[in-house]
Amino acid sequence: MVEETNLLYEGKAKKVYETNDPNLLIIYFKDDATAFNGKKHAVIDEKGALNKAITVKAFGWMNECGIPNHFVEENSGREIVVKRLKMVPVEVVVRNIAAGSIAKRLGLKQGEKLPRPVIEFYYKSDELDDPMINEDHITAFGWANEDTIKKIKDMALKVNDCLKEKFDKAGIELVDFKLEFGFDNDGNLLVGDEFTPDGSRLWDKETGEVLDKDRFRKDLGDLIEGYEKIMMKISRV
Amino acid sequence: MVEETNLLYEGKAKKVYETNDPNLLIIYFKDDATAFNGKKHAVIDEKGALNKAITVKAFGWMNECGIPNHFVEENSGREIVVKRLKMVPVEVVVRNIAAGSIAKRLGLKQGEKLPRPVIEFYYKSDELDDPMINEDHITAFGWANEDTIKKIKDMALKVNDCLKEKFDKAGIELVDFKLEFGFDNDGNLLVGDEFTPDGSRLWDKETGEVLDKDRFRKDLGDLIEGYEKIMMKISRV
Ligand SMILES: Nc1ncnc2c1ncn2[C@@H]1O[C@H](COP(=O)(O)OP(=O)(O)O)[C@@H](O)[C@H]1O
Ligand SMILES: Nc1ncnc2c1ncn2[C@@H]1O[C@H](COP(=O)(O)OP(=O)(O)O)[C@@H](O)[C@H]1O
Ligand SMILES: [Mg+2]
Ligand SMILES: [Mg+2]
Repeated sequence: MVEETNLLYEGKAKKVYETNDPNLLIIYFKDDATAFNGKKHAVIDEKGALNKAITVKAFGWMNECGIPNHFVEENSGREIVVKRLKMVPVEVVVRNIAAGSIAKRLGLKQGEKLPRPVIEFYYKSDELDDPMINEDHITAFGWANEDTIKKIKDMALKVNDCLKEKFDKAGIELVDFKLEFGFDNDGNLLVGDEFTPDGSRLWDKETGEVLDKDRFRKDLGDLIEGYEKIMMKISRV
Repeated sequence: MVEETNLLYEGKAKKVYETNDPNLLIIYFKDDATAFNGKKHAVIDEKGALNKAITVKAFGWMNECGIPNHFVEENSGREIVVKRLKMVPVEVVVRNIAAGSIAKRLGLKQGEKLPRPVIEFYYKSDELDDPMINEDHITAFGWANEDTIKKIKDMALKVNDCLKEKFDKAGIELVDFKLEFGFDNDGNLLVGDEFTPDGSRLWDKETGEVLDKDRFRKDLGDLIEGYEKIMMKISRV
């Protein structure tokens, strides 16, 4: 059995533990909700448990679609066991529909369908507020090389194709989402971190209701109610 | 002789005229200085004349380096004759040294040498404040295709190699600069628009003195004095 040893890292939404197996980590999903780079903060009962369950479901879907990822198994409580990765310090955002920052940046209407899925990169840095970057920034500063970027874009689009179809079957529109990638010991590029409504936009296909963390960012209603609706809908797919 | 017919476009810093030759335009360099997307504005005597002269010199250098561009000939006063292009609506920025927005975005020190030249793209839109974009935005919205982007990056780096060496000989550090590109009638991609201290950062190599429009943006001293120093220095190369 995989056993937690020491806390490696505590982030805004998760804790990461080393384990008795040097190649495995345990991720614990916290109940904390933050927005605007931590300027808005709350502790919301059950959020961690729901994020864990949704992440497990999403990595399961990726497995069905043959997309390499770090998920190994569920642990008790709000924990998962994952392969330890050397993370690329870049957040990879895939967008199908204009919402949030891209709508503002490019003067698009919220809810406008993009001509095709669009990928954006953000440098993972709390101090800098996760600035948007381009591929040239990534290679110039050595955050990843060209080949890795190409693979990341490829895999991100495959994740999008995979999850869009699954969420569609669940009656949910996959508006956009954030992924992180990393390398395992053998140099394989895997999807890491999480897939949760904290880092994605998920709208009810029938009613248009926002089910994701925008409920918290924009005070659109009880967060947990949204996350529970997501869980209920996807558990049938 | 090329004769102005009607005003095609008046921008922040230039006027563009159609001519008696449908393939040629005349660009007139105005004395207006603007910054912060027009929020700061002044009319500065001799600015247009200096910008014209510096642009002529820079396109001459590009010609020496074999870089295709729209420059045809000088006209009287503060005008140049150029090939009419179908412009790509993207500003292409090449950076050698961190200054301005990249320093802020990535937490770099002003004046820090970048690991290698870095290219950035901005969508040309006054309403949106010329937002930074990536290559995926450009292709998704049809502003240019992948092949054109590749060519633009290639040419932009060639321009950088060419001008960096020339400015170096003139005792000036080429910190960064903005280019625009467009297609001529035969489908050739050319460097268009201008090369001026309005759209570049040029520092005195000996003293570090800022000679470009940052003098105006940051009230670092008389703008014209800087532009005249540039002109004096480059006229010897
Ligand atoms: N398989 C993995 N191996 C190593 N690190 C990982 C793995 N998956 C995710 N991480 C990292 O663990 C951290 C997760 O905690 P989180 O609360 O999301 O942090 P942050 O606030 O930095 O995003 C992130 O820094 C993420 O990059
Ligand atoms: N060779 C060319 N053919 C057609 N348009 C050009 C050419 N060179 C530059 N332009 C365009 O002419 C305008 C120059 O005016 P400017 O005052 O710089 O405008 P702006 O404020 O829009 O940047 C720009 O819109 C630029 O894209
Ligand atoms: Mg995180
Ligand atoms: Mg201009």
